[in-house]
Amino acid sequence: MNLELALRMTEAAVRQAVREGVAISVAVVDEGGHLVSFQRMEGAGIAGPALARGKAYTSVALRGSTLELAGRTAPGGDLHGLPREGFVCVGGGVPLWADHGEGWRVVGGIGVSGGTVTQDVACAEAAAEVWRTR
Amino acid sequence: MNLELALRMTEAAVRQAVREGVAISVAVVDEGGHLVSFQRMEGAGIAGPALARGKAYTSVALRGSTLELAGRTAPGGDLHGLPREGFVCVGGGVPLWADHGEGWRVVGGIGVSGGTVTQDVACAEAAAEVWRTR
Amino acid sequence: MNLELALRMTEAAVRQAVREGVAISVAVVDEGGHLVSFQRMEGAGIAGPALARGKAYTSVALRGSTLELAGRTAPGGDLHGLPREGFVCVGGGVPLWADHGEGWRVVGGIGVSGGTVTQDVACAEAAAEVWRTR
Amino acid sequence: MNLELALRMTEAAVRQAVREGVAISVAVVDEGGHLVSFQRMEGAGIAGPALARGKAYTSVALRGSTLELAGRTAPGGDLHGLPREGFVCVGGGVPLWADHGEGWRVVGGIGVSGGTVTQDVACAEAAAEVWRTR
Repeated sequence: MNLELALRMTEAAVRQAVREGVAISVAVVDEGGHLVSFQRMEGAGIAGPALARGKAYTSVALRGSTLELAGRTAPGGDLHGLPREGFVCVGGGVPLWADHGEGWRVVGGIGVSGGTVTQDVACAEAAAEVWRTR
Repeated sequence: MNLELALRMTEAAVRQAVREGVAISVAVVDEGGHLVSFQRMEGAGIAGPALARGKAYTSVALRGSTLELAGRTAPGGDLHGLPREGFVCVGGGVPLWADHGEGWRVVGGIGVSGGTVTQDVACAEAAAEVWRTR
Repeated sequence: MNLELALRMTEAAVRQAVREGVAISVAVVDEGGHLVSFQRMEGAGIAGPALARGKAYTSVALRGSTLELAGRTAPGGDLHGLPREGFVCVGGGVPLWADHGEGWRVVGGIGVSGGTVTQDVACAEAAAEVWRTR
Repeated sequence: MNLELALRMTEAAVRQAVREGVAISVAVVDEGGHLVSFQRMEGAGIAGPALARGKAYTSVALRGSTLELAGRTAPGGDLHGLPREGFVCVGGGVPLWADHGEGWRVVGGIGVSGGTVTQDVACAEAAAEVWRTR
């Protein structure tokens, strides 16, 4: 992950948010789960810094989209016993994969918060598309 | 949010608590989720400072009543995967909205704890009514 | 400690703050160190909830004024090794003593934050005077 | 504080970092101390998210530059007894003041981490200059 790419992904997420008519927060983290960039749009709530970052971190830490993890951590899911601290298992977090010659691994994550789950997922996917076509 | 209004809202919540025959804690926070005023009635439990403040904060951070959020964070709800730390998703927290010329946004919140959920909600609503008719 | 007395003490602290020309936060805690009341004046900073409450708590927990504790926790002081977490050893916290027939003990505390240390101490002392002449 | 201005300030801080030959993290927070934007340059350490944000938050919460606060929280300073948790009192955090008709108050803060204290301060000041000439 690098800052320039993180900002391009953020831009794509924000453009999607404008199309959705919603104000969001967008976080991008590196393979260590540490923040690379964050932007909160005018009118997006104060939980954005914690939730967007949390979704991005969670998608890296558990190597899956937080939408999928929402199902797996629900009662009956295989990850239901996961501690709640530190993980945000609500749609809007997407891991970013790359193969730098040592097999595919997660090298970063994007997290979006501020809209409905569907809107957050759409914004995160718009950002992930920038990653996939980088 | 300002202190004078916060105290008037608190007074309304306390009056409702007296009608309900219950001792409560009442917290009012600003748009940043920071405490503006707090009062704990004689006989209200020591969890009041954390829970009333937590409900008020949560209603601002997630921009909804904590009663509604209780349903959304329950199994099957769209926010079920939300971490429990930092958020109190039990009825009794109500966000306060205003339009200062830039569209409606949450500019504060009220949180009540000490009675049953129904009583806490009734007290918080009595306070919110002061806000709406300010 | 009871709410009515806590509010009278708070009022005295706020009156002193107006005389000092400063905006403060005032916290009153009970003998368990738990918040009974809190008020943040217009213009007082967002650290007030943590610091005023912290000073009140510290004055109860360590049974001394936080001004005196500031000296004792400084290098060379007898409490220098105290952990920093949870204690605010800056002037503006005053313990409240009472003898309910079992000897004198601390039954609450007041904490003020927002001005200079001297101003915070003056406001806390104005509140403590209400306690002593109750 | 708004995102567009936060990004312009961040850009100025990053330009100064390039001049200084150092890789930094830059955080901008609003008047509630909540993150509005964050950027970590290629090569800046993983403590950046916590430290830059912490400096920005501290400058808002305590309404002063963290460089000045470093002196005041040192042994002998009037704030020496302040708890270390939650506050980062190392140079590189600068509060941003505005008067929206109710007197001057802190409406946001900038925090820089990654270089020496002198470099962090220089980068934060470059950002603050954008604020002052906005």
